Amino acid sequence: MKSYKCSMQGFGKFVSFSFVILISCSLAAAHTHPLDPLSAGELLLVRTVLINASIMNPTDNIIATLEVEEPEKLVVKAWNPGKELPPRKALGLSDYEPFQKSLAKRGLPFSETVLLPLPSGWFGVPEDKGKRLSNVQFLYANGTVNFFMRPINGIFAIVDLDEKRVHKYRDIYDEEIPLPSEKGTDYRLEAQEPPLLQPLNIISTEQPNGPSFTVNDHIVIFRIQIRQDPSELWFFKTYMDEGEYGLGLNTASLQPLNDCPRNAHYLDAVLPSASGFPVVKSNCICLFERYARDVAWRHTETLAPHVNTVTEARPKVTLVVRMVTTLGNYDYQVDWEFQSDGLIRVAVGMSGMIQTKATKSTSTKYEEGNVHSDSLHGVLVSENLVGVIHDHFFSFRLDLDIDGPKNSFLTSELKRRRIHCVYGIPRKSYWDTEKHVAQTEADARIQLSLAQPSEFFVINSEKTTRLGNPVGYKLVPSATAASLLDPDDFPEIRAAFIKNQIWVTQYHKDERYAGGEFVYQSHGDETLSVWSSKNRSIANEDIVLWYTLGFHHVPVQEDFPIMPMVSSSFELKPANFFERNPVLKAQPNKVADFDAYFGEVQSNSEE
Amino acid sequence: MKSYKCSMQGFGKFVSFSFVILISCSLAAAHTHPLDPLSAGELLLVRTVLINASIMNPTDNIIATLEVEEPEKLVVKAWNPGKELPPRKALGLSDYEPFQKSLAKRGLPFSETVLLPLPSGWFGVPEDKGKRLSNVQFLYANGTVNFFMRPINGIFAIVDLDEKRVHKYRDIYDEEIPLPSEKGTDYRLEAQEPPLLQPLNIISTEQPNGPSFTVNDHIVIFRIQIRQDPSELWFFKTYMDEGEYGLGLNTASLQPLNDCPRNAHYLDAVLPSASGFPVVKSNCICLFERYARDVAWRHTETLAPHVNTVTEARPKVTLVVRMVTTLGNYDYQVDWEFQSDGLIRVAVGMSGMIQTKATKSTSTKYEEGNVHSDSLHGVLVSENLVGVIHDHFFSFRLDLDIDGPKNSFLTSELKRRRIHCVYGIPRKSYWDTEKHVAQTEADARIQLSLAQPSEFFVINSEKTTRLGNPVGYKLVPSATAASLLDPDDFPEIRAAFIKNQIWVTQYHKDERYAGGEFVYQSHGDETLSVWSSKNRSIANEDIVLWYTLGFHHVPVQEDFPIMPMVSSSFELKPANFFERNPVLKAQPNKVADFDAYFGEVQSNSEE
Repeated sequence: MKSYKCSMQGFGKFVSFSFVILISCSLAAAHTHPLDPLSAGELLLVRTVLINASIMNPTDNIIATLEVEEPEKLVVKAWNPGKELPPRKALGLSDYEPFQKSLAKRGLPFSETVLLPLPSGWFGVPEDKGKRLSNVQFLYANGTVNFFMRPINGIFAIVDLDEKRVHKYRDIYDEEIPLPSEKGTDYRLEAQEPPLLQPLNIISTEQPNGPSFTVNDHIVIFRIQIRQDPSELWFFKTYMDEGEYGLGLNTASLQPLNDCPRNAHYLDAVLPSASGFPVVKSNCICLFERYARDVAWRHTETLAPHVNTVTEARPKVTLVVRMVTTLGNYDYQVDWEFQSDGLIRVAVGMSGMIQTKATKSTSTKYEEGNVHSDSLHGVLVSENLVGVIHDHFFSFRLDLDIDGPKNSFLTSELKRRRIHCVYGIPRKSYWDTEKHVAQTEADARIQLSLAQPSEFFVINSEKTTRLGNPVGYKLVPSATAASLLDPDDFPEIRAAFIKNQIWVTQYHKDERYAGGEFVYQSHGDETLSVWSSKNRSIANEDIVLWYTLGFHHVPVQEDFPIMPMVSSSFELKPANFFERNPVLKAQPNKVADFDAYFGEVQSNSEE
Repeated sequence: MKSYKCSMQGFGKFVSFSFVILISCSLAAAHTHPLDPLSAGELLLVRTVLINASIMNPTDNIIATLEVEEPEKLVVKAWNPGKELPPRKALGLSDYEPFQKSLAKRGLPFSETVLLPLPSGWFGVPEDKGKRLSNVQFLYANGTVNFFMRPINGIFAIVDLDEKRVHKYRDIYDEEIPLPSEKGTDYRLEAQEPPLLQPLNIISTEQPNGPSFTVNDHIVIFRIQIRQDPSELWFFKTYMDEGEYGLGLNTASLQPLNDCPRNAHYLDAVLPSASGFPVVKSNCICLFERYARDVAWRHTETLAPHVNTVTEARPKVTLVVRMVTTLGNYDYQVDWEFQSDGLIRVAVGMSGMIQTKATKSTSTKYEEGNVHSDSLHGVLVSENLVGVIHDHFFSFRLDLDIDGPKNSFLTSELKRRRIHCVYGIPRKSYWDTEKHVAQTEADARIQLSLAQPSEFFVINSEKTTRLGNPVGYKLVPSATAASLLDPDDFPEIRAAFIKNQIWVTQYHKDERYAGGEFVYQSHGDETLSVWSSKNRSIANEDIVLWYTLGFHHVPVQEDFPIMPMVSSSFELKPANFFERNPVLKAQPNKVADFDAYFGEVQSNSEE
């Protein structure tokens, strides 16, 4: 589609009964009047777009109407020969009456509605069996780009992606539920009413000699699941984004200086379009050295004999590989951060728009003391608008080879010990470690617990350090969330990988995605949980470590109209992988070097 | 002491039976020969140092010998008139024979030993009752500044800080346990054998117009506890550092460009010395704006009708207030980070030297499969050297006043719900929130659980947003650790604050330190746990939120000879404190502005 310089309303791919195509390309220039009918070239363009977007096959006959959408009367009146034409749009319908009626009932013009695909997946409904179904969410734009804050309530449609027709349609119209106001939801700079926030003084990460890295490829494999609340119009909102949308195809072009710093190096990506044509996306990945003013290590010594105070500190500079993928309302930022001491930090950030739902309420009833669970399944973030509570789960497939393919998974339990009257030891308790090498996949299904802590290592049990410690890397979780769904719930069955934070499986080439390959049709039969249940040997084998990073998200008003980025991370940390601190010989920054490049600092620092 | 330009071996303050003072001041210049006896001036100097360091009172008569310590013979021989004198040292003893014997037995000269105070605290031993006792650890320097890696095994001494004498002394000499080698433990740059690590290209955070902040005071109140393993020589190593050492007095002077960036602003601190004299420490606190390339918020929109792709991203610049305090072997870095969206992030980093213990082993016995808990209570990090397993706990006293002093503590439980056959809803389960306002202190003793998650808010229950949500701030924990000790263990009694991650108490001016005011004599009687047990009302009162941040530390070889910084954090996040995203109107960086200051970027970024 990129090649046609045309945009489409809704994910055309999923919307088989109606579409609007904006013609902003040279073709439009050929016209002399805003109301000129579509030219042959435009008709062909539309058809090609529809076919490329796989809304129709070349052999399909599904288009009922296809015409120029007339601009607003005022626009037409305001236009004079010679003036630039207003944007030309082709409006097409396969004439799905009920939807037209629903819009009419609400007095909403179709051209201002946005149709969002919400992949369905299996919920055990017999008549859905074997079908590729997609739910459609209806939003109302009417001039705002932040239509996510304007859900149209009560319309419920499922389209059959193979049959290319509406599979189910319901309209539960509640006239008491108005459209949420769009006031102040537009997040674009030009839409902000003055005064804007005072800009900070210029601050930049500068590398006059360029970066210290050379570019090489890097692959990030992960999966995302979002869950929403379970009312009739909402229960299906359990996305398997990577499988259903494609993280690659939805990778966003990074905005220099705002998504990544000035010292970033950008990589383009070549992605396959739905029609199989290659699409080149620019600035999909950026690499940069992060200088966050962390310290690699430091010590101040005042007690050394015959020596005055010693202070040794080494700054930490890390290499970050970043991509952002936008999946409808959410923007996911994934960083792979590489430290010079061998530590790898993986961070996931989430921004964009929260999932919303229209409501009649304009105020939250709050009572001092006990407040029973509110019926909104979310938080009122604006008048008539609920930010729906939900989770995010990311599954990372970590195919580590520690000094070779044959590895083992070592758990080191921190065990509370009781001391029973030992002479000279008044202490009653202490803790110690108890190590265990997982023999089979069942031994490596881990649910983290603060009360019963453990450390987790992938080791090469055939290689040790000179001291005999097994050579390994340690998985260091940080803030995360565990699934709150029941095991027999359909999303939990299809995304069973969220049951545990850690899994280890025997390596198999075709076991790539925790949620399986075909998530639309998945009944949970080809997923991480199923592979793990084979209970294969993972001791001294080629193994894969899976980590599930979770977020519970209960929105707050600060998330409206666009949410500040929330992030979490985990680390892969060398643990007896090196014989000693590998950055002991790192060199400190020298003031003179920096002054030479940037001039003397205007601060009261004492050097 | 600073004023005398003299340094002392060991924490003189605690070492009442022997000391060495290095005289590097002008007084030394008066001499003509390395073996010249101490001059009157030098004797007076020593006495003043001892009094100022409160090793002795002006009225004490405790000094048995006080003489010049003769340099090594070779040094004296190498010296010729006119040459600069070797460092002069005054050696003093109150002649504690057993210790001299212990050293002789091991063939170790006293002048190379370092005596470390390890505050004792109450362990229920009757004859210790009411005494201010300090345990002494013995280390051997012999030329290395990293004597922490050279513990002398088997000597066990407790000194009485009031009586200024040895309270208990034992020597369990095991000739099979050698001194760990000092080879390669020196972390100073000049001690590193080439080749050093290749330095990275210059990277700097630059603010040509200076910082965007103006300086004002900030206070950080916290407490630290470290626990070690419980063998006879170790059970007492349960420090209450702030109370026993004083975080203020041990604040390290920050090293510009390595501890803090070029754009940092430094503050000095005026601290009281033990003798009550004011001591000015330079560069104790630094403030700087961090530009870590995080994103405040972002979104890419491709679905807006009549609009081409929208990308809006805002960079995140935060204000960091940093201090580092060095307590013997450990360096603690504490950051208070303030975001423009109102979020406050508190981070604690730990570096320096791990706690060590000498051992006869030079190799770890490792068995494939089950490995029973090793008897070292730690990890072999070098030949004959064990890195001892331990915990770190930091207690943060957070006296929040959300829109006024009268606040409440609101817990929002994330509750799993079961769905029983509702028509049209195939889902089996979902989760929802259940809110509860803590009425008394007992309701607010929280142990975090991944399986039963909750969110925690300090709210002003008399103020709501326009939508009726209570105005509040949310406590967002990240990685932490829970105590593994038994409740009846003495350290757990005295530091009972580690039992819970969250406490809320009614505000009382004198309830300042989670471990109480006088931790030496403490029997756990005036601590957070005791205050909480009063179970006072905390609903709509002036309340204090306490957060315990914990680390379990099982050392690895990478921690030798100096440990890479480990850090964790927690956040105080606005939750319906603002009516909407407060940084919606933030402005993006503009390429032209930056190019103007720093020149065009040499990268393949597409703008």
